[in-house]
Amino acid sequence: MDPMRSPLLTDLYQLTMLESYYERGMVAPATFELYARKLPPHCGYLVAAGLAQALEWLEHARFGPDELEWLEQSGLFKPAFLDRLADWRFTGEVHALPEGTAVFPDEPIIQVTAPLPEAQLVESRLMNLLQFQTLVATRAARVVDAAQGRRVVDFGMRRAHGAEAAMFAARASYLAGFDATATVLAGAEYGIPVTGTMAHSYILAFAEEMEAFKAFLEAHPDKAVLLIDTYDTEAGADKVVALAQQGLKASAVRLDSGDLADHAHRVRRILDQGGLQETLILASGDLDEYAVAAMVAAGVPIDGFGLGTRIDTAAEQPFLECAYKLMAYEELPRRKRSEGKGHWAGRKQFWRSHDAQGRVSGDRLGLADEQPAPDGQPMLERVMLDGRPLQAPEHLDTIRERTRKSIQALPALCRDLHDPTPVPVTPTRALKAAAREADRITGYCSE
Amino acid sequence: MDPMRSPLLTDLYQLTMLESYYERGMVAPATFELYARKLPPHCGYLVAAGLAQALEWLEHARFGPDELEWLEQSGLFKPAFLDRLADWRFTGEVHALPEGTAVFPDEPIIQVTAPLPEAQLVESRLMNLLQFQTLVATRAARVVDAAQGRRVVDFGMRRAHGAEAAMFAARASYLAGFDATATVLAGAEYGIPVTGTMAHSYILAFAEEMEAFKAFLEAHPDKAVLLIDTYDTEAGADKVVALAQQGLKASAVRLDSGDLADHAHRVRRILDQGGLQETLILASGDLDEYAVAAMVAAGVPIDGFGLGTRIDTAAEQPFLECAYKLMAYEELPRRKRSEGKGHWAGRKQFWRSHDAQGRVSGDRLGLADEQPAPDGQPMLERVMLDGRPLQAPEHLDTIRERTRKSIQALPALCRDLHDPTPVPVTPTRALKAAAREADRITGYCSE
Repeated sequence: MDPMRSPLLTDLYQLTMLESYYERGMVAPATFELYARKLPPHCGYLVAAGLAQALEWLEHARFGPDELEWLEQSGLFKPAFLDRLADWRFTGEVHALPEGTAVFPDEPIIQVTAPLPEAQLVESRLMNLLQFQTLVATRAARVVDAAQGRRVVDFGMRRAHGAEAAMFAARASYLAGFDATATVLAGAEYGIPVTGTMAHSYILAFAEEMEAFKAFLEAHPDKAVLLIDTYDTEAGADKVVALAQQGLKASAVRLDSGDLADHAHRVRRILDQGGLQETLILASGDLDEYAVAAMVAAGVPIDGFGLGTRIDTAAEQPFLECAYKLMAYEELPRRKRSEGKGHWAGRKQFWRSHDAQGRVSGDRLGLADEQPAPDGQPMLERVMLDGRPLQAPEHLDTIRERTRKSIQALPALCRDLHDPTPVPVTPTRALKAAAREADRITGYCSE
Repeated sequence: MDPMRSPLLTDLYQLTMLESYYERGMVAPATFELYARKLPPHCGYLVAAGLAQALEWLEHARFGPDELEWLEQSGLFKPAFLDRLADWRFTGEVHALPEGTAVFPDEPIIQVTAPLPEAQLVESRLMNLLQFQTLVATRAARVVDAAQGRRVVDFGMRRAHGAEAAMFAARASYLAGFDATATVLAGAEYGIPVTGTMAHSYILAFAEEMEAFKAFLEAHPDKAVLLIDTYDTEAGADKVVALAQQGLKASAVRLDSGDLADHAHRVRRILDQGGLQETLILASGDLDEYAVAAMVAAGVPIDGFGLGTRIDTAAEQPFLECAYKLMAYEELPRRKRSEGKGHWAGRKQFWRSHDAQGRVSGDRLGLADEQPAPDGQPMLERVMLDGRPLQAPEHLDTIRERTRKSIQALPALCRDLHDPTPVPVTPTRALKAAAREADRITGYCSE
């Protein structure tokens, strides 16, 4: 059973509820929406990502012989339910925000309308697929903003949480504007440019650092990036100059430890004095958007940044406060009112408005069947019908360009790295009425 | 190409270095070790986990036709290197700490000895596999400690970072002492007990909460857990009592929002007054070891905890500060001296000593060929030879029992949740001599 495809990668309660829904014939259309409850700390926006994988999963999820056999021997379910699962496939309709679009709390990132048991079962994996890529794309977009045109590369595979996370982190950071990844398989699968330098172990495998540099330069005459901090960073830079004088020229050096800003200044001076003005300085080691922004603001002579752990694990807060909630059943709005976790009811759409300069001025969140505002652009698009995608997956560079435009259109205050002001999201009158209606339907007010 | 098996799930520089090693005939045996540089915040120990997956990956990693074709068309490598990769397999020897063992910084979790290019290539995926499970097992062991015998269950699949992370989080939390997981596929693949309750959407799909409870109790007469916070927690508890009086008895109720301690007291009172002393109270929602410990210390009447996001993402710090470093090449010790990232050189072993009461008194970190101390137990075991595992994978319950014993043997101060004192790790004289020798070999002192 392949965890990336099996519908058993879900919470047990989904199956328990499904059995009950089928037994009671509760198969009317239901609409669920996945939305953020809150922005991550210090973030003024989110960048929606992961839709391609979500649609692929929805299209192909099936209970195969191995799944059915395990469910049967588990003794947890009745045979009639297992028969039903043998034919199960997702037949629903999906509306979603195109990947690479800026999005705010309460706005649906994906909206699933399907017979209740189908829309329910897919919850766990849809959240699992969408929340992580959205989280990484958001952090990565902030890094790109902070780097102000300097090169930024994903180095984080080793500390991502497993194989799929490593792949998704490479994909999400690239669509958010990173220039490349070190993860080879992400190059092979997604067409992302791959790049790399050398590890400390390469240096250590030679008796002398000089010898290691020389060997690497000989093997990669035009594009060698030398890691110069294994023993002493400035002494390493001196060797780079000495080797250039022998005709072995590095394209860049990499710093990976100590005070990166301080070393960058010293190394730049050594390289320049040695006539190596064109040799770039790359830096890595525990970087995030804040560190990049600080170095850029201070004019530190670093030409490119390798970011790993803190972006690939979204370390500042490694989860998105999001939910996948039933919004309508049998065409009627529904909502829960749990303390601190209430939400707007009904099947939604939202519209984005821009000012005369083309900046986003605000979003209106309303019901899908509302008359659209004349100045607002509807953001959710229909992407799947009867469980089949309506178009081929987008090219990653198309998404990357969408991200660039979507972020550039945000007000500067919304893009602030430290204390941003998100774009206002205003509920329509119809949305407020639907919330009251939902409370009436479920008898909340009468209790 | 399956990300969970493909050797292309690696950093590009591994392949670049490999090509150079093969070209220069640098294929002598090298020893690399993976170790933690620091403990995660507030942690007094780590629990080693993920070895089974690491060994499986090492045994099966191959460059298949798809991998070779992509590498060829990438134009990044020479044909001779690709021919070499076509026959590549890991042929090395591995020593490791059995899963479920408490471990401290600088102590090897896994030690790989193989021809340099093989030991080098496996770095990225070994770190990716071992650091995440070790991180989750560590957090989960702390939760188990905090829960003092109350039931703890993994609910975190939806916010884990992708499919493999969800599976590994279920595995690592179970081997660390969790009682069950909600992730069905982890039950199917690893034999972990699976459990579940119901979601808010189930309640919302019915016009009345009472109707939803009734439907669920009828479908699961003996084991229904009712989620009672959708509208009003105490009103939900009243309904549970009313239904019991009609003969429909819930086995437990679940609280998932608001002040869990406060609601638990009120709900316990309502249930007890309704004659439901045996109905358990389960709680979930943003819990971690600190929240569990605080509720247990305050005598909050909660019988079981569902933990998700904060454990499955190791949210307090979602990465392990660890490294996989070259320790010896051509039988000689090596080490890097980068600022803040230096390490002990040489191929290691470590020994654990216990006091008269059976408590761990300290570890000694030394070289593998040192005479063992008479009172110390050697911790690293040989688990793989010529790229083949030396024994069948352990049963997860065997590992779980090892974790229990390993944590119980730690001093109370080391298990403190807030300000622990780790067990002291003392380097042997031979280890100190090896570090000096490594610096001499790589010319560090003479620069």
